[in-house]
Amino acid sequence: MPANATSAALELFDHHRDTLERAVQAIAERGYWSPFPESLRQYPEEAVMGAQAEFEALLGRHFALAGPQPIGRSGAERSPYGFELGVTYDQYDTDELLERQQKALPGWRDAGARARVGACLEILQRLNALSPALAHAVMHTTGQAFMMAFQAGGAHAQDRGLEALAYAWRAMAEVPETACWIKPQGKQDPLLLDKRWHIVPRGLSLVIACSTFPTWNTYPGLFASLATGNPVLVKAHPGAILPVAMSVKVAQEVLGELGFDPALVSLVVDTPEAPVAQRLALDPRVRLVDFTGSNAFGEWLEQHARQAQVFTEKAGINTLIIDSTHDLKAVAKNLAFSLSLYSGQMCTTTQAIYVPRDGIRNGDEQLSFDQVADTLASAINGLLSDNDRACAVLGAIQSEATAARIADCRALGEVLLDSEVREHPQFPGARVRTPLLLKVDASDRAAYAQERFGPIAFVIATDDSAHSLRVAREVIAEKGAMTLGVYSTDAAFLYQAESLARDVAVALSVNFDGGVFVNQSAAFSDFHATGGNPAANASITDGAFVSRRFVTVQSRRPAVLSWERADDLL
Amino acid sequence: MPANATSAALELFDHHRDTLERAVQAIAERGYWSPFPESLRQYPEEAVMGAQAEFEALLGRHFALAGPQPIGRSGAERSPYGFELGVTYDQYDTDELLERQQKALPGWRDAGARARVGACLEILQRLNALSPALAHAVMHTTGQAFMMAFQAGGAHAQDRGLEALAYAWRAMAEVPETACWIKPQGKQDPLLLDKRWHIVPRGLSLVIACSTFPTWNTYPGLFASLATGNPVLVKAHPGAILPVAMSVKVAQEVLGELGFDPALVSLVVDTPEAPVAQRLALDPRVRLVDFTGSNAFGEWLEQHARQAQVFTEKAGINTLIIDSTHDLKAVAKNLAFSLSLYSGQMCTTTQAIYVPRDGIRNGDEQLSFDQVADTLASAINGLLSDNDRACAVLGAIQSEATAARIADCRALGEVLLDSEVREHPQFPGARVRTPLLLKVDASDRAAYAQERFGPIAFVIATDDSAHSLRVAREVIAEKGAMTLGVYSTDAAFLYQAESLARDVAVALSVNFDGGVFVNQSAAFSDFHATGGNPAANASITDGAFVSRRFVTVQSRRPAVLSWERADDLL
Repeated sequence: MPANATSAALELFDHHRDTLERAVQAIAERGYWSPFPESLRQYPEEAVMGAQAEFEALLGRHFALAGPQPIGRSGAERSPYGFELGVTYDQYDTDELLERQQKALPGWRDAGARARVGACLEILQRLNALSPALAHAVMHTTGQAFMMAFQAGGAHAQDRGLEALAYAWRAMAEVPETACWIKPQGKQDPLLLDKRWHIVPRGLSLVIACSTFPTWNTYPGLFASLATGNPVLVKAHPGAILPVAMSVKVAQEVLGELGFDPALVSLVVDTPEAPVAQRLALDPRVRLVDFTGSNAFGEWLEQHARQAQVFTEKAGINTLIIDSTHDLKAVAKNLAFSLSLYSGQMCTTTQAIYVPRDGIRNGDEQLSFDQVADTLASAINGLLSDNDRACAVLGAIQSEATAARIADCRALGEVLLDSEVREHPQFPGARVRTPLLLKVDASDRAAYAQERFGPIAFVIATDDSAHSLRVAREVIAEKGAMTLGVYSTDAAFLYQAESLARDVAVALSVNFDGGVFVNQSAAFSDFHATGGNPAANASITDGAFVSRRFVTVQSRRPAVLSWERADDLL
Repeated sequence: MPANATSAALELFDHHRDTLERAVQAIAERGYWSPFPESLRQYPEEAVMGAQAEFEALLGRHFALAGPQPIGRSGAERSPYGFELGVTYDQYDTDELLERQQKALPGWRDAGARARVGACLEILQRLNALSPALAHAVMHTTGQAFMMAFQAGGAHAQDRGLEALAYAWRAMAEVPETACWIKPQGKQDPLLLDKRWHIVPRGLSLVIACSTFPTWNTYPGLFASLATGNPVLVKAHPGAILPVAMSVKVAQEVLGELGFDPALVSLVVDTPEAPVAQRLALDPRVRLVDFTGSNAFGEWLEQHARQAQVFTEKAGINTLIIDSTHDLKAVAKNLAFSLSLYSGQMCTTTQAIYVPRDGIRNGDEQLSFDQVADTLASAINGLLSDNDRACAVLGAIQSEATAARIADCRALGEVLLDSEVREHPQFPGARVRTPLLLKVDASDRAAYAQERFGPIAFVIATDDSAHSLRVAREVIAEKGAMTLGVYSTDAAFLYQAESLARDVAVALSVNFDGGVFVNQSAAFSDFHATGGNPAANASITDGAFVSRRFVTVQSRRPAVLSWERADDLL
């Protein structure tokens, strides 16, 4: 493989080395850090001003990418804000595409860790520059409101990509490149071997993107695999192809400019009628699968893609336990935002809220269950009373199925707050819905202990807080959860909550009543999912997320050593 | 769980800290290092002198360990040197044993990484002190000759245990315990969260030991799991229980002395007629499985133990390619030892030796295929001509099945060197056999491209060295291999060999013609198996071997920070 490509990529490694080193420091400390600004004001004015036009110029056209000879075209994305995107993408013969990536693998592998990481760092920087335009593409595929699409789909996704890259780099750098092995033999000459170690990728990596976070949930697997030497097939969700295609294009440009085969990162598109993920995931050449999406398909992958290392983020019953509060209004305000943000379509949004049926202590007062439920409902109403603000928080519902689910779920409990259809100020055709809040009894497990994706939450009456803990433990152990929020003023209860979190391996957020929300997960600090309960078999990003993407191959041969050097080394 | 236990274990951590730190340095450098001496002279004289008596005192008796109420006894080990051990071991009700370990888990988990690693370091040190007695137990279960049993079963196994422990410690230490997350909010107050992270074990860990290396292949999984918080069930091979039982006893003593439940490490015994590994491996409480043994059972575990992380070391076709040599006699001497050591019963012993049918260059001369084969056969004959030395190299054949296999394989090719039955100078009943060397054609894949465990090797005639590389590539890709040895004086050929090693992910040894052998694998330096070809799905020990044994659970809560401290941190 092109020595020129390698040396150009090594220059990029040197160029971006400070960022990489800071990222490695960040994953070791896990305090706050982000290299990619989340404020539009920190991006060049022309990029921000021109972003919408840049996005619109892509609509109604074919989106070209590098790859083998196309055999067809596909693409039928419709914005949740009510219009067709009209973008088409190439489809390839699977076998030809996989062969092409297989052929490119040795060159990419042999370029070495530094060169690969250098190229990845450059890709991330260019993705960051593209953030304003990407935001429109994310908005009009996922339904996220613009600012969220800009932040979560742009800087935060890039943060997650860099975080995975830092983990991959650290894991590779922990394997020495060479060593001299000198084993003393008493009075005889020592045994000498020269050894070297190669980082060897698993094979082809399939990253299956989702429709709600097509960049945020895709970049970690993409960069972890690519950095460790695995060519990557990104299979976009048919409803959210464009932001993935734009991302793949950036990767292909960097790879191509360096002299590598741009098809080392390739886009795969399909249709709901003729899905390809299942077939690809079972291909013997595919050795890594990253997936975000439904439990059904995630579990299918875990069961069937036996030739591959499979990393899944599925769904669970995100849980909140209210035991006691100092200021329920502040709590309710926090929860109202959390439940409304992106209409509850985050994999971290709370679904099950346990409250003792006899109510809770709030500061000096005792509040009944209904008072707690009403305070929460009122807070949601308050947050969403201004329609413009409501639309900026809610965004739009990504799929018709989610909108239909809201209606289907109304009968599952007593309606505390009904979901409303709202009209978007700019996009009259947008699918905007406010949260549905239902009251159920802890015994109604069939209602609340099943994932109800979308703006649907249950306030669940329990015998007492100990009962809340018990039910939450059972439900999370069986169904999993990405998040557990707990409100209590009692240190002993919080200790029990911490034990629960450890026992069922779920991330815990305690007494959030300010400007941080249980459904937020910050790169370089928060581990997203633990990988230890049924909601996900992997964490974004920990050591296990990267260490299984490569193996180490050693080579050793007898060394001839001058005695001077031996003396130095012994 | 006992705060006293934790603090006593923390003292052990401090006590052994230098060893741990040196081990962590060693895995980063991978030069030569070993804390456990492999020479008997470095052990206390009384331990060495008393070892045989210590071993004999165990024979014909019940071996008691901590655990639930036993429900029966088992044990029918027979020394490959020709006598019954007569030792029995307790059998437990599986459910009761697993429940007991489940109950002990939270206390062990919550003791924290330092305490757990401290206890493990103490266990290793006490195992080391037991090495002379352990050697007899290893010898009379595996059939290894005494010195090998002492080294591979003692110090080298302990090295491997410490290496896994160092990896586990490094992986856990890379997760910070706490952090303060301070996100600037422009002119507003920053968002503040206090965060902490818990290392949470996967669950119960089942380590399935083998009959040939019951300590060396068991300690890595045992210590990696135990250090990361998982209680360990060690399922001994019915033919090699005693060294495992002695090891478990040491672990139980340390755990019990500290105040933890000794059953955190428990022995499981079974019989060939009523095996329990399959049922245990599918138990939902068992979340980690380490296995060394047959391809059939290893693949069964990979396919069926879906609730667990499965680490297998199976078998492959260990390969040698002879292209050209400087000094074939030196090469043959090296290979003779390699093929004879422990009668070829190492998972790293060469089985397939590819030689061009037109012969090779050796220095200035051209040697025919038959000359190469004869040189090798003569070297084996030479090495084994003295019967005492032969027995000290060969040891005994562990199982009757392996002895029978030698006879069965005679018809697979032209006999270059026949296997002989030898009489052991001290143990007349010992099952001692010399290697069988067969000549076959590259087209006879049914003969050589299937694992023939034991002292059975094939010299395979190929069209030329390029053909050797091609066939080796195909066979290793399909069947896997732990080792690949290559002899060539041609740098270009060695480059191709290095590419082959990378492509099929096998460890390469080049031109070994001195005192190091292709089947040797040194802890802290050599990765044992890559985990990247069908011979093994894991490597002893790399990052992936430990990172999947725990998950990280986070807990975060709003922080109230003095501005002074915030200024320091921001």
